[in-house]
Amino acid sequence: MNKAVFPGSFDPFTKGHANIIERTLNLFDEIVIAIGVNSKKQYLFPLENRIQSISNFYKTEPKISVKTYEGLTVNFCQQIGAKYLVRGLRTSSDFDYERTIALMNKSIDKQLETVFIISAPELSAISSTVVREIYNHKGDISQFIPNGFKI
Amino acid sequence: MNKAVFPGSFDPFTKGHANIIERTLNLFDEIVIAIGVNSKKQYLFPLENRIQSISNFYKTEPKISVKTYEGLTVNFCQQIGAKYLVRGLRTSSDFDYERTIALMNKSIDKQLETVFIISAPELSAISSTVVREIYNHKGDISQFIPNGFKI
Amino acid sequence: MNKAVFPGSFDPFTKGHANIIERTLNLFDEIVIAIGVNSKKQYLFPLENRIQSISNFYKTEPKISVKTYEGLTVNFCQQIGAKYLVRGLRTSSDFDYERTIALMNKSIDKQLETVFIISAPELSAISSTVVREIYNHKGDISQFIPNGFKI
Amino acid sequence: MNKAVFPGSFDPFTKGHANIIERTLNLFDEIVIAIGVNSKKQYLFPLENRIQSISNFYKTEPKISVKTYEGLTVNFCQQIGAKYLVRGLRTSSDFDYERTIALMNKSIDKQLETVFIISAPELSAISSTVVREIYNHKGDISQFIPNGFKI
Amino acid sequence: MNKAVFPGSFDPFTKGHANIIERTLNLFDEIVIAIGVNSKKQYLFPLENRIQSISNFYKTEPKISVKTYEGLTVNFCQQIGAKYLVRGLRTSSDFDYERTIALMNKSIDKQLETVFIISAPELSAISSTVVREIYNHKGDISQFIPNGFKI
Amino acid sequence: MNKAVFPGSFDPFTKGHANIIERTLNLFDEIVIAIGVNSKKQYLFPLENRIQSISNFYKTEPKISVKTYEGLTVNFCQQIGAKYLVRGLRTSSDFDYERTIALMNKSIDKQLETVFIISAPELSAISSTVVREIYNHKGDISQFIPNGFKI
Repeated sequence: MNKAVFPGSFDPFTKGHANIIERTLNLFDEIVIAIGVNSKKQYLFPLENRIQSISNFYKTEPKISVKTYEGLTVNFCQQIGAKYLVRGLRTSSDFDYERTIALMNKSIDKQLETVFIISAPELSAISSTVVREIYNHKGDISQFIPNGFKI
Repeated sequence: MNKAVFPGSFDPFTKGHANIIERTLNLFDEIVIAIGVNSKKQYLFPLENRIQSISNFYKTEPKISVKTYEGLTVNFCQQIGAKYLVRGLRTSSDFDYERTIALMNKSIDKQLETVFIISAPELSAISSTVVREIYNHKGDISQFIPNGFKI
Repeated sequence: MNKAVFPGSFDPFTKGHANIIERTLNLFDEIVIAIGVNSKKQYLFPLENRIQSISNFYKTEPKISVKTYEGLTVNFCQQIGAKYLVRGLRTSSDFDYERTIALMNKSIDKQLETVFIISAPELSAISSTVVREIYNHKGDISQFIPNGFKI
Repeated sequence: MNKAVFPGSFDPFTKGHANIIERTLNLFDEIVIAIGVNSKKQYLFPLENRIQSISNFYKTEPKISVKTYEGLTVNFCQQIGAKYLVRGLRTSSDFDYERTIALMNKSIDKQLETVFIISAPELSAISSTVVREIYNHKGDISQFIPNGFKI
Repeated sequence: MNKAVFPGSFDPFTKGHANIIERTLNLFDEIVIAIGVNSKKQYLFPLENRIQSISNFYKTEPKISVKTYEGLTVNFCQQIGAKYLVRGLRTSSDFDYERTIALMNKSIDKQLETVFIISAPELSAISSTVVREIYNHKGDISQFIPNGFKI
Repeated sequence: MNKAVFPGSFDPFTKGHANIIERTLNLFDEIVIAIGVNSKKQYLFPLENRIQSISNFYKTEPKISVKTYEGLTVNFCQQIGAKYLVRGLRTSSDFDYERTIALMNKSIDKQLETVFIISAPELSAISSTVVREIYNHKGDISQFIPNGFKI
């Protein structure tokens, strides 16, 4: 059974995230959307809110679940028996960053593979960081959030 | 009438900034140097100082004005009726960052175009961040500041 | 009068090219689509064909004309009195390549500025090279060509 | 059934290629190593030789087969009913190139996903182009070829 | 006499750092491992600890010494009469960052050259930032630290 | 004795090349400017011309010599007992390319180090390829060639 983890803070969950999941779902028997919790970081949307809204969005998809974790992503994968991480790549800067993370993870657990797909071009500029900034300034972020997703 | 905004924190204003303005001035009827104010950020040079010194430097150039703004750059452009943003590109890392910002801005306002020019090579390593660090350690920053510019 | 040159081989002219022109047209009084002719290169679409089809596509737009040139782009700009080049940037690899060309051009003619805009994300993977390859293998290229454009 | 194509010219097949296959094999029910044949290109190793040596190397692995194709990769995938392409990413230059190819493929066939993994760091500088150059100058290429692989 | 400075925070010192020093040692008569101290930053390993452990690791190598400095690296180099900085490059993102620093340093002191080597590929994903994160979550970091190095 | 090789085709030798040599000369006891000869490539300037003009330019510098070689650069380094290669880096695209070459060379000869410096920013857009194109179109290339260098 191929179980995959899609890790992130999803603050907020965007069309970009949904697109990665949709396009890789057939590759795996199960995808766990894993919300990383770092007690030193401040989030815009409360954790409880993010869990609820993502779970709700995927409630009819039995292969997708939502979990939270603290600590290293690689340890979380081991705890739940996931052999794959899933990530999207938007730009070559993303690539350099993701490469370091993926290879460090593999140094710790030789069995853990990170599988990448390239972001849909029309979504490739969506960044949670910028979405938060727009939200903070009372801008309209609805176009960056999946249709039917309730924040 | 083509009005452009050149946004930044200009902390401090450098030869790199002056070069971008000088080289794009003929493209526009008016360029507004827009100093972004983020109440959560600490600046090295006081806002009042930056407004004064930049205004003074361009006082004989009727097409250039200096304004401040809070919030989203795209909202500021709408308020003053500017259809263009102007930015310089130094490196491919700059490109990936600026691409995200430019495309997010355009998502919010379809009419807003960001126009880029490539930094003059001899100025391409000037970074306000590094200039501040040099200044903080009592280094001489005069070679990074436009000739005749009074900080 | 601000005259700009949009240089390329346009073999073929794509939605990506049309988008660059459409988005920069208001910046200039005149844009010359300049088809570079290199006698050592083989083209897929005959030169005469490219001139006709692009001219025809823009026949109702008085600010746009189509010309051909041999030799250095910078010399062509001088001959027709253009002070600007217009180019699109899709990726950071594009950036490194375009940077070299733009700075070399400016070394030869200090007055010549290259103005860049960032390709619309949904068009950012369109490459004439790949379009030709698809065409050569009898694939359908219509989705990469502007609507209403007759090759 | 998830069938994947790993396309390339494999001139020659390297440790880098073998590593990509080994690490993605569990994701798919079947991986087709697809040797692209371009009648205009010159290859170092004859096609027959490449088919034989790769087939021989994987003869005990029932999920892997070797095929050749001409024309567009996307058409070949459709002919054999493959919904996935597999590719390795070594550098950010690779990324920009592969991004264009992957997105163009997806433009032609919306169902076709390209799945990437990041090359093992110790193999990340192996390039068939450079291996050919070493071979042409009578250098020893054995360290770049999988152990037990007979060219 | 060619004296070089290898600057960093070395929080912690990794196999990547050791590899850079080992591979450039023959180029110089003396290499000073210079631990930069920034009173505003928080470090994981105490300064005293880092000085001791690095000094101890190189105690049999007379060409290597360990020093600390505050302020600009370029000033430290001048104080100790070093004409070279040594840095490793892992990725193209590293390159853009290091380029800015190297060129700014050279703007301040025309005599100061930064010499780069490319990280050994198997070490190219080791990042002190990620090592600290692993350590903070009680992960095992021994594989990222030089053999025989006592933290 | 530290002997270094600066390899290239130098077709033509530019200010960029001269700058790399000038800035690394103190690091080595001897620098060999090594003109690679590839019988399949066409050069703009005849080999004899390049040898003469570079030798002449450096005739008063006893540490610099000019040699030609065929085949692998790494073999040439071994034949003349050079332990270092010297290269300049202009852009992040350069970095990815040079990284592959440097690591492949080191795979063949573990003792061979490639030492990089970052091109002077005002020279960072000079490319022999573009200089040849300008020359071919009867443009003036004198500003890209070192002062006093006779092509």
